[in-house]
Amino acid sequence: MKKFDIIPLFAIFAGATLIITAIMIQGSIMIFWSLSSLIITIVGSFFALMASFPFKILKQAPSILQQAFFHPMDNRKSLVSLVTSLSRKARSEGLLSLEDELDDLEDPFMVKGLQMVVDGIEPESISEILQLEIDAIERRHEIGHSIFSSWGELAPAFGMIGTLIGLIVMLSDLSDANAIGIGMATALITTFYGAFFANMVLIPIANKLKSQTSDEIYTREMMIESILSIQSGLNPRIVEEKLTSYLSPKERIMEEEVVMEDAS
Amino acid sequence: MKKFDIIPLFAIFAGATLIITAIMIQGSIMIFWSLSSLIITIVGSFFALMASFPFKILKQAPSILQQAFFHPMDNRKSLVSLVTSLSRKARSEGLLSLEDELDDLEDPFMVKGLQMVVDGIEPESISEILQLEIDAIERRHEIGHSIFSSWGELAPAFGMIGTLIGLIVMLSDLSDANAIGIGMATALITTFYGAFFANMVLIPIANKLKSQTSDEIYTREMMIESILSIQSGLNPRIVEEKLTSYLSPKERIMEEEVVMEDAS
Amino acid sequence: MKKFDIIPLFAIFAGATLIITAIMIQGSIMIFWSLSSLIITIVGSFFALMASFPFKILKQAPSILQQAFFHPMDNRKSLVSLVTSLSRKARSEGLLSLEDELDDLEDPFMVKGLQMVVDGIEPESISEILQLEIDAIERRHEIGHSIFSSWGELAPAFGMIGTLIGLIVMLSDLSDANAIGIGMATALITTFYGAFFANMVLIPIANKLKSQTSDEIYTREMMIESILSIQSGLNPRIVEEKLTSYLSPKERIMEEEVVMEDAS
Amino acid sequence: MKKFDIIPLFAIFAGATLIITAIMIQGSIMIFWSLSSLIITIVGSFFALMASFPFKILKQAPSILQQAFFHPMDNRKSLVSLVTSLSRKARSEGLLSLEDELDDLEDPFMVKGLQMVVDGIEPESISEILQLEIDAIERRHEIGHSIFSSWGELAPAFGMIGTLIGLIVMLSDLSDANAIGIGMATALITTFYGAFFANMVLIPIANKLKSQTSDEIYTREMMIESILSIQSGLNPRIVEEKLTSYLSPKERIMEEEVVMEDAS
Amino acid sequence: MKKFDIIPLFAIFAGATLIITAIMIQGSIMIFWSLSSLIITIVGSFFALMASFPFKILKQAPSILQQAFFHPMDNRKSLVSLVTSLSRKARSEGLLSLEDELDDLEDPFMVKGLQMVVDGIEPESISEILQLEIDAIERRHEIGHSIFSSWGELAPAFGMIGTLIGLIVMLSDLSDANAIGIGMATALITTFYGAFFANMVLIPIANKLKSQTSDEIYTREMMIESILSIQSGLNPRIVEEKLTSYLSPKERIMEEEVVMEDAS
Repeated sequence: MKKFDIIPLFAIFAGATLIITAIMIQGSIMIFWSLSSLIITIVGSFFALMASFPFKILKQAPSILQQAFFHPMDNRKSLVSLVTSLSRKARSEGLLSLEDELDDLEDPFMVKGLQMVVDGIEPESISEILQLEIDAIERRHEIGHSIFSSWGELAPAFGMIGTLIGLIVMLSDLSDANAIGIGMATALITTFYGAFFANMVLIPIANKLKSQTSDEIYTREMMIESILSIQSGLNPRIVEEKLTSYLSPKERIMEEEVVMEDAS
Repeated sequence: MKKFDIIPLFAIFAGATLIITAIMIQGSIMIFWSLSSLIITIVGSFFALMASFPFKILKQAPSILQQAFFHPMDNRKSLVSLVTSLSRKARSEGLLSLEDELDDLEDPFMVKGLQMVVDGIEPESISEILQLEIDAIERRHEIGHSIFSSWGELAPAFGMIGTLIGLIVMLSDLSDANAIGIGMATALITTFYGAFFANMVLIPIANKLKSQTSDEIYTREMMIESILSIQSGLNPRIVEEKLTSYLSPKERIMEEEVVMEDAS
Repeated sequence: MKKFDIIPLFAIFAGATLIITAIMIQGSIMIFWSLSSLIITIVGSFFALMASFPFKILKQAPSILQQAFFHPMDNRKSLVSLVTSLSRKARSEGLLSLEDELDDLEDPFMVKGLQMVVDGIEPESISEILQLEIDAIERRHEIGHSIFSSWGELAPAFGMIGTLIGLIVMLSDLSDANAIGIGMATALITTFYGAFFANMVLIPIANKLKSQTSDEIYTREMMIESILSIQSGLNPRIVEEKLTSYLSPKERIMEEEVVMEDAS
Repeated sequence: MKKFDIIPLFAIFAGATLIITAIMIQGSIMIFWSLSSLIITIVGSFFALMASFPFKILKQAPSILQQAFFHPMDNRKSLVSLVTSLSRKARSEGLLSLEDELDDLEDPFMVKGLQMVVDGIEPESISEILQLEIDAIERRHEIGHSIFSSWGELAPAFGMIGTLIGLIVMLSDLSDANAIGIGMATALITTFYGAFFANMVLIPIANKLKSQTSDEIYTREMMIESILSIQSGLNPRIVEEKLTSYLSPKERIMEEEVVMEDAS
Repeated sequence: MKKFDIIPLFAIFAGATLIITAIMIQGSIMIFWSLSSLIITIVGSFFALMASFPFKILKQAPSILQQAFFHPMDNRKSLVSLVTSLSRKARSEGLLSLEDELDDLEDPFMVKGLQMVVDGIEPESISEILQLEIDAIERRHEIGHSIFSSWGELAPAFGMIGTLIGLIVMLSDLSDANAIGIGMATALITTFYGAFFANMVLIPIANKLKSQTSDEIYTREMMIESILSIQSGLNPRIVEEKLTSYLSPKERIMEEEVVMEDAS
């Protein structure tokens, strides 16, 4: 199962607290509260977002949003030792023997791939089908990313629209000189909301989704490599060598420890 | 037939209402009405657009615009079961037996492809011809998208040009101090129009067209895969496995239900 | 021969008229006339352009500019029927019989390709040579496009440089309060010139060149496909099917009419 | 071992000194010191960064940062002569004779590759495994680069957010005319911090990482070419010719000197 | 030898003269002279550049800069007739006969390639080695281009940093109302320097390097095509046809004249 990732939530919360504290040190937080500005910035940009994407896609936004707050699937270290041992078993007992192992596997992608190996489907079809799966995952994630990055561009634009409205209203009646400052302050609040919402919430979420996608795709490609290597009956040592290439230097050290513990 | 999509029209309308309400709360809507600003922003940027594209292409804009307000063709769920059953029929009764099914198919792309299968044209030619069709669709949609995204860049630029005109006129005669505010307010209205028109209408439409194109191309590629799989006499189970890869996890669940209903 | 396209010239002229009218409604057109601003914006940015491109390339600018005001070569509809009939002739009377038709062809690219077919040069060489031609065309057009899009970026930059000069001069002597407004107005005129020249003239021309290049390349690719299909002795019906894929739905309807008239 | 590169540290230090000197010439450095502005700009943007990347990746930032201050691995000149001599040895004494040389090699990538040559693994597998290594290196470096370039975009955004807060507070109370200047000055300090931190520190580091990655990848590709050339028993003269292509004209001259010294 | 290209130097000089004239018409040139502004903009951005690139690369900047002021190597017209005649000679007298011609060739790339032909190295190796050369040239030029385009982004950023410093100093002491104008004027001068230096010098040089690289790579690719065609013993007429595809229509006319003069 994917694990909840508290860090981004904490970071957004901490960022908001920091900004609120900075406001309270300099003046009253009440100056910065404006429901109408909030509505123009967030609801206005959301309407523009609604016109930008088919509703069928937009309604996936909450579940996509959730993904940004969970750890991506990236236990590549344990994959190396798993595949090395499956590879050994397949060479000594035959590909059919892998069927017993399928129930112990958590990841449906690995199960699907290995099931096709057991079923005797030729490598080209397996590779093609699994690659199609990866393309489909990539496509879905890219759409998710583009929802939040579009919103991250629209929010400051609506902040600016709100500020323009405030400025035009203020400028069209300069009779009360005392109101000028207040008018400009109020006008700037929507720009502030747009900048904060985009840079503290939307752009980070879009970035997070993008970097997690890249991570997941990488693990999936490693899985295809694994499945095809097992099927081809490649020397387990070479299989391990190949898969180790996917690990970072740090993970490699940990992987060696895992192997050593395994051997002991 | 493509179905009308009320959402984007609703969203644009709701966004406009929101902005108008925000204006009316802060001041009079009349301050914001300026026919000349509207003409500079919208007609001015349209003339620049007219110089940017061959007229032959530009006159397709209304029909392209329409597409943004219709659901894209994406019934991929039903395609899986359709193709699986065609695949079974072709294997048991021969490829010629598909001719009877062609009349029931709605989509001209599928009909064209399967007709070529029935006519005994070799897979390479079929794949090539259908790929050319997809390329042509992609090309037309990209042009459509680029019209609206170019307009979305030109509109704020003309908004700024209008504001510069207003500012220069105002600054060149500062004798009447009372007129300064009004002058600047009027000048800013074109910037406001440009920002609103671009961010609430043009950019969302361009985004919508882009995301729909990607969706349609994806379905078309799935159709080529389908047609070639049927022709090659591939095992229907593998055909289904392949096509299921094109579906999202949600669609897969629904697809299974369809299959189950199908079987019952 | 390419036909003159009045639309972009009309559009630029209409846009200029619109802006001038807007100026005259609000104030005197004389405020906006400044020869020195015009020189800083246009000549200044042209000097920067001169330093940006080899002179050999830059001196092609006038002939490239001309292209933006001519219809691109895109009579793809008539190409389909021409090639279908050539294909029939080649199958019945042999490839050598095409030699008689070469004199009737207008386009040198088609003539070059078919001449090589008649000369018995193998398909790989023909395809390679024609593809090199397309690459060369694309390269030349891209350079043309980049001249005008670079200029479109430099012009507003020099507009801003002119405005900075005006502002600095004005700010360094604020003794005459009445001159402040005039000073700022004059300073802003170069920004206005830069924005107008870029958005109404240079960027549209760059866009036009880009979209025409894409159109011409597309037609050229269709021609290579045509020439190779004729040479390979492919069934004329499949040739027609292939080439029809290059047409838009609208052109297809017209093409069918042409074919029907042809048959009657 | 990688060698420490004093230049970037010196450059950042010199840039900071330059800016501080410029400040001290014009006014007091104390005006520019604001702890709260520093916290909004740097800590605020860091919180946004924290929400943008999985923590597992972000905690690599210090070790990635270190890389920007070390010379990239790029001794391509010595690689040419090394590989030429290994190539000669392999041709005269057989591939197994390379085993003795492995202990003298510093670079683990070369060792891994040559060890596989000695072990008699076929070229396709060697090439694939080493290419996977390069891809993994490239991926890790790209992530490192994207952390610092994202931060370089977020820092000025938070600088602007801080300035907006200051402006809104100041504008909402214009009663004390004397405080206006101080208020605006204080507000602008966060913009200044954001601009300085991004342009003097973060963007240069991101650029440095990017250019070093490109350099390292290039050397690694040269190494794969080397290893496969040795394995294939290619004529050492052609091997040298090939590898020399990777060198810049300057390095070539130096390489010839090395070769000449080698020969003498 | 490459020939000096006076145009870019003239253009930069003319642009500077234009701007200086514009300043002198409006006010005194002395207002615009500020050594400290110049240092912040140019030296400051250079320090940031120093932190952005390995010093080994940065010290190539002067020699890269020089390239922008020389004509790129692009005598493609004469290459066509040269290669056609070499091709004829090779067919009639054998490949070894080319050795006599090598001394007359100026370009080391052509010499290297033809020497390999004479040495009897197989086409795949020749093509690979020459392609590696092109990749290396492209890589070096791209680095050169990126130095100047990075600088072109950093210079206006440091101009803005200088302006922020000036504004903050001025705003923190508004007691002397007369100094406000001078303060702002002085502050804006760094922005002016940054904009001028970037748009008149750095960005044009970066563009020039980019367009020259593209030109040189194109000629090199034509050379590989030439060398392989000569080696393969292709019909000289087809060789000429192929190479003519690399020429622009204008060059083709001139090439025909050269051929005609050649024949007379």
